[in-house]
Amino acid sequence: MNSFGNIFKVTTFGESHGPAIGGVIDGMPAGVHIDIQEVQHQLNRRRPGQSELTTQRSESDTVEFLSGIYNGVTTGTPIGFIIRNTNQHSEDYKDIAAAFRPNHADFTYSTKYGIRDPRGGGRSSARETAAREVDGAIGKQARKPLGINIWDYTSGIGRLHVTKHYSKLNPLDVDSNPVRCPDGTKASRMIALISKVKAAGNTVGGTISCVITGVPAGLGDPVGNKLHADLAAAMMSINAAKGFEYGLGFKSVEMLGSEVIDEFTVDAQKRVHTLSNFSGGIQGGISNGEDIYFKVAFKPVATLLQDINTLNDRLEPTVLHARGRHDPCVVPRAVPIVEAMAAITFFDAFLRSKTCTL
Amino acid sequence: MNSFGNIFKVTTFGESHGPAIGGVIDGMPAGVHIDIQEVQHQLNRRRPGQSELTTQRSESDTVEFLSGIYNGVTTGTPIGFIIRNTNQHSEDYKDIAAAFRPNHADFTYSTKYGIRDPRGGGRSSARETAAREVDGAIGKQARKPLGINIWDYTSGIGRLHVTKHYSKLNPLDVDSNPVRCPDGTKASRMIALISKVKAAGNTVGGTISCVITGVPAGLGDPVGNKLHADLAAAMMSINAAKGFEYGLGFKSVEMLGSEVIDEFTVDAQKRVHTLSNFSGGIQGGISNGEDIYFKVAFKPVATLLQDINTLNDRLEPTVLHARGRHDPCVVPRAVPIVEAMAAITFFDAFLRSKTCTL
Amino acid sequence: MNSFGNIFKVTTFGESHGPAIGGVIDGMPAGVHIDIQEVQHQLNRRRPGQSELTTQRSESDTVEFLSGIYNGVTTGTPIGFIIRNTNQHSEDYKDIAAAFRPNHADFTYSTKYGIRDPRGGGRSSARETAAREVDGAIGKQARKPLGINIWDYTSGIGRLHVTKHYSKLNPLDVDSNPVRCPDGTKASRMIALISKVKAAGNTVGGTISCVITGVPAGLGDPVGNKLHADLAAAMMSINAAKGFEYGLGFKSVEMLGSEVIDEFTVDAQKRVHTLSNFSGGIQGGISNGEDIYFKVAFKPVATLLQDINTLNDRLEPTVLHARGRHDPCVVPRAVPIVEAMAAITFFDAFLRSKTCTL
Amino acid sequence: MNSFGNIFKVTTFGESHGPAIGGVIDGMPAGVHIDIQEVQHQLNRRRPGQSELTTQRSESDTVEFLSGIYNGVTTGTPIGFIIRNTNQHSEDYKDIAAAFRPNHADFTYSTKYGIRDPRGGGRSSARETAAREVDGAIGKQARKPLGINIWDYTSGIGRLHVTKHYSKLNPLDVDSNPVRCPDGTKASRMIALISKVKAAGNTVGGTISCVITGVPAGLGDPVGNKLHADLAAAMMSINAAKGFEYGLGFKSVEMLGSEVIDEFTVDAQKRVHTLSNFSGGIQGGISNGEDIYFKVAFKPVATLLQDINTLNDRLEPTVLHARGRHDPCVVPRAVPIVEAMAAITFFDAFLRSKTCTL
Repeated sequence: MNSFGNIFKVTTFGESHGPAIGGVIDGMPAGVHIDIQEVQHQLNRRRPGQSELTTQRSESDTVEFLSGIYNGVTTGTPIGFIIRNTNQHSEDYKDIAAAFRPNHADFTYSTKYGIRDPRGGGRSSARETAAREVDGAIGKQARKPLGINIWDYTSGIGRLHVTKHYSKLNPLDVDSNPVRCPDGTKASRMIALISKVKAAGNTVGGTISCVITGVPAGLGDPVGNKLHADLAAAMMSINAAKGFEYGLGFKSVEMLGSEVIDEFTVDAQKRVHTLSNFSGGIQGGISNGEDIYFKVAFKPVATLLQDINTLNDRLEPTVLHARGRHDPCVVPRAVPIVEAMAAITFFDAFLRSKTCTL
Repeated sequence: MNSFGNIFKVTTFGESHGPAIGGVIDGMPAGVHIDIQEVQHQLNRRRPGQSELTTQRSESDTVEFLSGIYNGVTTGTPIGFIIRNTNQHSEDYKDIAAAFRPNHADFTYSTKYGIRDPRGGGRSSARETAAREVDGAIGKQARKPLGINIWDYTSGIGRLHVTKHYSKLNPLDVDSNPVRCPDGTKASRMIALISKVKAAGNTVGGTISCVITGVPAGLGDPVGNKLHADLAAAMMSINAAKGFEYGLGFKSVEMLGSEVIDEFTVDAQKRVHTLSNFSGGIQGGISNGEDIYFKVAFKPVATLLQDINTLNDRLEPTVLHARGRHDPCVVPRAVPIVEAMAAITFFDAFLRSKTCTL
Repeated sequence: MNSFGNIFKVTTFGESHGPAIGGVIDGMPAGVHIDIQEVQHQLNRRRPGQSELTTQRSESDTVEFLSGIYNGVTTGTPIGFIIRNTNQHSEDYKDIAAAFRPNHADFTYSTKYGIRDPRGGGRSSARETAAREVDGAIGKQARKPLGINIWDYTSGIGRLHVTKHYSKLNPLDVDSNPVRCPDGTKASRMIALISKVKAAGNTVGGTISCVITGVPAGLGDPVGNKLHADLAAAMMSINAAKGFEYGLGFKSVEMLGSEVIDEFTVDAQKRVHTLSNFSGGIQGGISNGEDIYFKVAFKPVATLLQDINTLNDRLEPTVLHARGRHDPCVVPRAVPIVEAMAAITFFDAFLRSKTCTL
Repeated sequence: MNSFGNIFKVTTFGESHGPAIGGVIDGMPAGVHIDIQEVQHQLNRRRPGQSELTTQRSESDTVEFLSGIYNGVTTGTPIGFIIRNTNQHSEDYKDIAAAFRPNHADFTYSTKYGIRDPRGGGRSSARETAAREVDGAIGKQARKPLGINIWDYTSGIGRLHVTKHYSKLNPLDVDSNPVRCPDGTKASRMIALISKVKAAGNTVGGTISCVITGVPAGLGDPVGNKLHADLAAAMMSINAAKGFEYGLGFKSVEMLGSEVIDEFTVDAQKRVHTLSNFSGGIQGGISNGEDIYFKVAFKPVATLLQDINTLNDRLEPTVLHARGRHDPCVVPRAVPIVEAMAAITFFDAFLRSKTCTL
């Protein structure tokens, strides 16, 4: 289906080239001040056409709120919103209406539903994530009084990986370059790499790392809805995501138990902490109050600006040459989406935690 | 909460040292023949005490079905079942009742709920997965007439990784050795490694790879409930899981788009296939009919048979020395659980797919 | 929350005097032809300003579909839609911004959320049901190929009750008069009664009876989601509903078991029927193939065009004199809403029934 | 499916003549003291064989808790429980294995699932409600510190109706007679009526009225999950329920708006109340702090101790003569079930209300 969350429940709708995309946020608590400019700002971060590194499709992506906010404050009723699609070049997709693009959802949608809207990939377009961006921006504002802070950044493009620990990076530097990598030296090299790949009509993958601080201990559930399982589902729902790990992740495979012990300690205010944080801030599916950090792997964008052999809908061989405006790398624009999906996940976990005692 | 699935909905209950664990399977279709011996067989695969590599806690783990099956056939009503806990050594856990074991859920449960059942880790014990094993075994039997086949194996222990492609491995070899690795040479080395680690009172991590064949195209949903997102959530809900990837996974980060194209082809029966399968059998969140394969990373078991510094519940320093019976490596016994969780996920996706057209 | 249905899941949003109301239909099967004119027609039936018997607020109530329908056919992706609010007279509600209207939701919303949108009753306005009307009209079109037919009518206004059995009434006569009662003689008296009540600035209650034919046996679940329980919840969610009964309903209280036996019989085509239908087409929560019929009771509209004593938001006594445009009786306009909610309920039950066997 | 509630989520399983019935309570807050004797007491109230008025099937109905309660206190993990079936006379049901009992679920289950467990009606037996009784008793104990009080009573049997207002009746008198009617005079006549009906091998219907006091204002949601819609669904899910009304219910149909105004007033403590309570304590789907009261209609029990014409499973005419032990009237034993379902509904609404503000 098309929803995320249990209590803070967001549903999105919309296709890339239909009249509009949008969504409904159900379960939003009342009394939260919403800074609509800030929502629009987050939406702008995801928007295409921001730099040479991203697709030149330049949509204005203006969110219109239709309900649930009165005089700038949430009322507890569902928040409906839409974002009009304004710059569709549907003619760019004439060819694909009759052909299955490799590594895209054309074949699977057609097989599942017996019908598909081919314009711009329809529902499978990353454009859908603009609606989730709004959901996440709302969730983030509600989160603010709770003291939970989420930030994320491009931590890898191709073989270029950020090796510095996140504590050595400045969240304010993320947006200082178009690749959204706060390690300036790596950022320059990443930009050069993407430009080179783009010039060849090719695409490249990457990773995004996310850090959440100020999380109270106690979020997440023991078996279903473990905090990291909900995070994994949220991240893997982002277009092009291929992998998820938290804490030491895949590295922990090669470790001995004695090497990854997070010993408890207690501070002057009698607050329990751990001396290390190999666990990534979650133990038994529940936050322990330490930083939560995780990483998401993204594959290279499927649409190449090269001739591609494929089948048309009569199952005959054909050659596709994509003409749409496409990103050479999905990662920079996915940074605000990872943040938004994390915000949705945490705010839902926070609301659920309110009911675990009387 | 404590459920998995939307239509094929399984809920588990039970603590490690309570009277019983169990579960309810709601949404089981009617008319499916259930081989209870086969369910018990899967349960036995997960059972402790099978070899030197696993904990010596030797529970009989006998499942008792209470409803939903009449004369060996499902009736469409919920299947309730219990597994009695018979070999608890609760006295082994006296110490931990008053101490937080590092890297365990003791602290997070206490903080979340203000109370916890300390015996054997209570609900956070991997014992809970026995109930999911039953759920998965039921789901697997329903899956059989559908032709979907799931198998999985230990693909890594510590730094020992299986490098052969899964097509070169024989599913029938998985249970031929206690580490559940169908690559015989690697299996011997893995067994030696675990034995050595165990002798040192230490533990080690590993990976499990899972392969699903015979999946019809069209399972999974476009945005929420993408097939790989549901798989990720299911896998990350298994105790000690730290990472998930499908298809090329984290490797795809370093690839160019042109290197990972799964070109379409059509066979004599007019069935569409792809020449390669970098995508891992899922495109746009929906199965495309190719093999689905994914990998799960498990951290080393948290309980060491060594002195461990920690805090007691008055937040004073204390030293723990675990006396319970513990696995030096969770991976061999997690193999049937990964399979069970995959079975639950796929059967639910299959049932959901029945409603996507009239 | 703001949703109905499990698989065919509809969510509405919007306040009476906000920019728009709307909704999302998630779980709509693909491949269903949608006649948008017909949806608009159903919406028009609910619209105010249709006769002297209803409020003179004359909104155009034009539905705009934003997604999920491509070339007139559903694609399986969520259907988003909005209906702009165009004729708000928010100044009519200045008084009530600072006062609690008796028998309205002003006090309960304020207490629950600490804030409310007072304009036109906000979310508690019957205007919200326009979105459900669209949901139901879509559900009805999907239902058409299934042969399920739903019709309903005004069966009582004040003390005037239709006593004829529904089989003696013609569904085509429902819209032949503004009170939507297919018993012409009763209709005239009902119209006279409402006019008289309206002239006195007063309001009156009534009942709606609904009949569903062509329902296949097997819809509905045994314990949760009994067909009549889902119907009851759907009907009681309509503004001003105070009671629900199906089959003999409250009358069965006074009957002996021997008086209400629905004896089975079998026709020439070996189809099982019952000779009578006291049960109302549902046995054990599941449809038995006979006509389903139920009745809903509606209270008199709460807003009188008379002076009403109440409290303002400082809890001081005040006198309200409603100036908005209000219905003297909710029943005629609720007829299409009962039908819509029944359509949502049945289509959801139908989709669920597809998963009860393999 | 087989669940009730959203956050306080109860699932039941079990057939009348299987090994056991039971359930899982998921979402139970931690730290609530559970008086298991009190749960058993409620279960005993529902038990058959309590008087001449009820079936003589005398099961011990002992609940065994398996999880979620540690040292008498809830831990926040799911509460699993079973009740063994101990006194099945399955041979009483040999005939019905091959015949469809009229007004029962035999035909609908068979049609829906293609299979049914005929022993004692299987899942459709009122025995299933014993599990809900446990759920409700747990919900009631959690409710106690909240000050919400629920009581209900037999308010009608056949044509004998209690006409006194509930405020003139004493909750402590409910269990003072086997018909559970606190109006002693009416109770005697009801008992005589049921005895007479029973002697004739016949059955009779009735009503149960329920009163909930101490409800804080603010429970229930505006559109979906209106408090009275959730109550309606809960009540209509009880075996033999045919109708539901709250507040003035069906009587409000015949009233003028001016006759049913619940005028607001404010007491010395600045608490808002209404001078009358025609609304039944709910306005706009949300509790307003006044008493909530509703009534449920039950049909006569379907099983008569008389010869009944019906069809066997080869669709040939046959005559059934029930030999099982059956209630002549379901109402007295349904009194604790109505209370239990109300407890589940209110506790769920209470937990949901905790998330409607930050």
